[in-house]
Amino acid sequence: MQKEIIITGYGVVAKELCKLLLDKSESIMDAFGIELKVNGIIGSKGMLYQREGLNLASLVMEEVGSKALSNYAQNHQISFLEPRFQGDVLVECTPTNIKDGEPALAYMLEAMDGGMDVVAISKGALVHSYQTIKDKAESTRSKLKFSGATAAALPTIDIGEYNLAGCTITRIEGILNGTSNFILTSMYEDNLSFSEALKIAQRKGIAEANPSLDIKGFDSGCKILLLANELLGTNYTIDDVSINGIEHLTRDDIVKTKMKQSRVKLLARAYKDEEKVVLDVQPCELDQAHPLYHVNGTNKGILFETEEMGTICTTGGASHPRGAAAAALKDLINLYRKS
Amino acid sequence: MQKEIIITGYGVVAKELCKLLLDKSESIMDAFGIELKVNGIIGSKGMLYQREGLNLASLVMEEVGSKALSNYAQNHQISFLEPRFQGDVLVECTPTNIKDGEPALAYMLEAMDGGMDVVAISKGALVHSYQTIKDKAESTRSKLKFSGATAAALPTIDIGEYNLAGCTITRIEGILNGTSNFILTSMYEDNLSFSEALKIAQRKGIAEANPSLDIKGFDSGCKILLLANELLGTNYTIDDVSINGIEHLTRDDIVKTKMKQSRVKLLARAYKDEEKVVLDVQPCELDQAHPLYHVNGTNKGILFETEEMGTICTTGGASHPRGAAAAALKDLINLYRKS
Repeated sequence: MQKEIIITGYGVVAKELCKLLLDKSESIMDAFGIELKVNGIIGSKGMLYQREGLNLASLVMEEVGSKALSNYAQNHQISFLEPRFQGDVLVECTPTNIKDGEPALAYMLEAMDGGMDVVAISKGALVHSYQTIKDKAESTRSKLKFSGATAAALPTIDIGEYNLAGCTITRIEGILNGTSNFILTSMYEDNLSFSEALKIAQRKGIAEANPSLDIKGFDSGCKILLLANELLGTNYTIDDVSINGIEHLTRDDIVKTKMKQSRVKLLARAYKDEEKVVLDVQPCELDQAHPLYHVNGTNKGILFETEEMGTICTTGGASHPRGAAAAALKDLINLYRKS
Repeated sequence: MQKEIIITGYGVVAKELCKLLLDKSESIMDAFGIELKVNGIIGSKGMLYQREGLNLASLVMEEVGSKALSNYAQNHQISFLEPRFQGDVLVECTPTNIKDGEPALAYMLEAMDGGMDVVAISKGALVHSYQTIKDKAESTRSKLKFSGATAAALPTIDIGEYNLAGCTITRIEGILNGTSNFILTSMYEDNLSFSEALKIAQRKGIAEANPSLDIKGFDSGCKILLLANELLGTNYTIDDVSINGIEHLTRDDIVKTKMKQSRVKLLARAYKDEEKVVLDVQPCELDQAHPLYHVNGTNKGILFETEEMGTICTTGGASHPRGAAAAALKDLINLYRKS
């Protein structure tokens, strides 16, 4: 079975996905009987499209972004076209835009209107317009997966949907942001102030120059929002998530927990309070018995409490572009596999 | 979509499955559009069968085993019939028989010949005749799942198959036996000898009167065998697994590791050694950085190293009959769900 892919955005994750598809096309065909072909990539200058499929071996020799696409166009003597959504599945890789979800939102809706399924890696559109996208998917019978948008290589949604199928999930807790976890770990282990630890994270390329989405808990809030809407049947927006970040934690706060042999972690949580599902993000003091106590550095983790299977905790998942691309590849395979 | 189930064996796990099916029939119908109906149960006296489905509410009022089935037969004025495999899916729940896999093996093969899918909870038949069962499944186009046979409520096979779809798994390590982990934890935390810790485990009902399958590593060996055959493409038998148990560990051995702040865990491992997949079970000394270091008591855990997503570690999963039944229910749902 052949599946034609259109990719929107060509940053580092999209490039890693192309590399994975190039390296693994044979093994994916063998294992799942699926031939994944990239027919088009939409960048800021328009769409590169080849009916026979883009030459990924040639494409991944270039860098990323518009320049890479222009070089490819030149090398293969093709032109940028008006974007059109024609194929089996859109892989949405544009930079996350929390403000209005664009251009991802328009791309996803248009693709679904054109009968395509969608695998999202960026989370802006989903956070901004979750219900609009779900409604569109239902009306167009499009399939939608977005592992890449909810902690990427750390399995989260699929644990709840697949590994816990049939179970009643009573609580979700996650360390869903690697940057803030790295900062908290540095403060704890190296006795640093928040701003010292942040600087180190920035120097290492772990935190961005403007780190506020990570340290103020907004990124974690977006992820727990998507998890709750998808797994707990809520219909919340980001305004329903009570969010506190780690930016006000002091060296003293951390020293105090150290003396108690506990650790502060930025937890994103979804739990029932008198039948209402509550979503919050806040620094929480965890003792050593908590399964997420041991998740340090840039690592992430997620815990599900269930009525039937007890507590299931998953940790790890590489925080690099290849990991995020592998999460999208997993979604593509799971959309179309036979068994 | 209605799916007719035949259950073989009616022990505590089968009863828990019937309770789950009773409690959850409506929510499973709502969420997945699947109506799961138990039409027959095969016990030592023969098969109870009702075309309209057994009355689970009545059945689960009884205890377990032959007596429960006889009571049900009497209450509903039905007779035990010759076993026959007619329906959509067999849930195999007979006691695990490692020696020759029977009667589970015959049941599974016959069910597949009759066009049924199979969800296995007991592992004897799979360990004894994995390839025979897989070949039969292929020739009859039957689907086969066996989460219940490989650590039950702890997701193992499905992590490898689904959450890591498309990834190259380079190593699997698991604490796959709760009894031996409980004994090791007691020895460590309470400074006990092996035999003292074993006695406590037996008194608590964690270890069986004859604990050798657990403490000698055989149970762990069976599980890693099934995981490797299913996920790494090997075609091994239990003789290919190098197995050492925990029965020779002394108090001194444990004290020594304690001084190094490490812990001994009975690890079941599958890894590549010069292109050959090696399977072994043995007590291993883990330092605190190892994700399975923190898995204590009767808890279990499994770790996958992958080329694309780094290391993914999952721990927990309740070690009780309801957890094992929930694993089978999960398999049933995942066999027939639309998306």
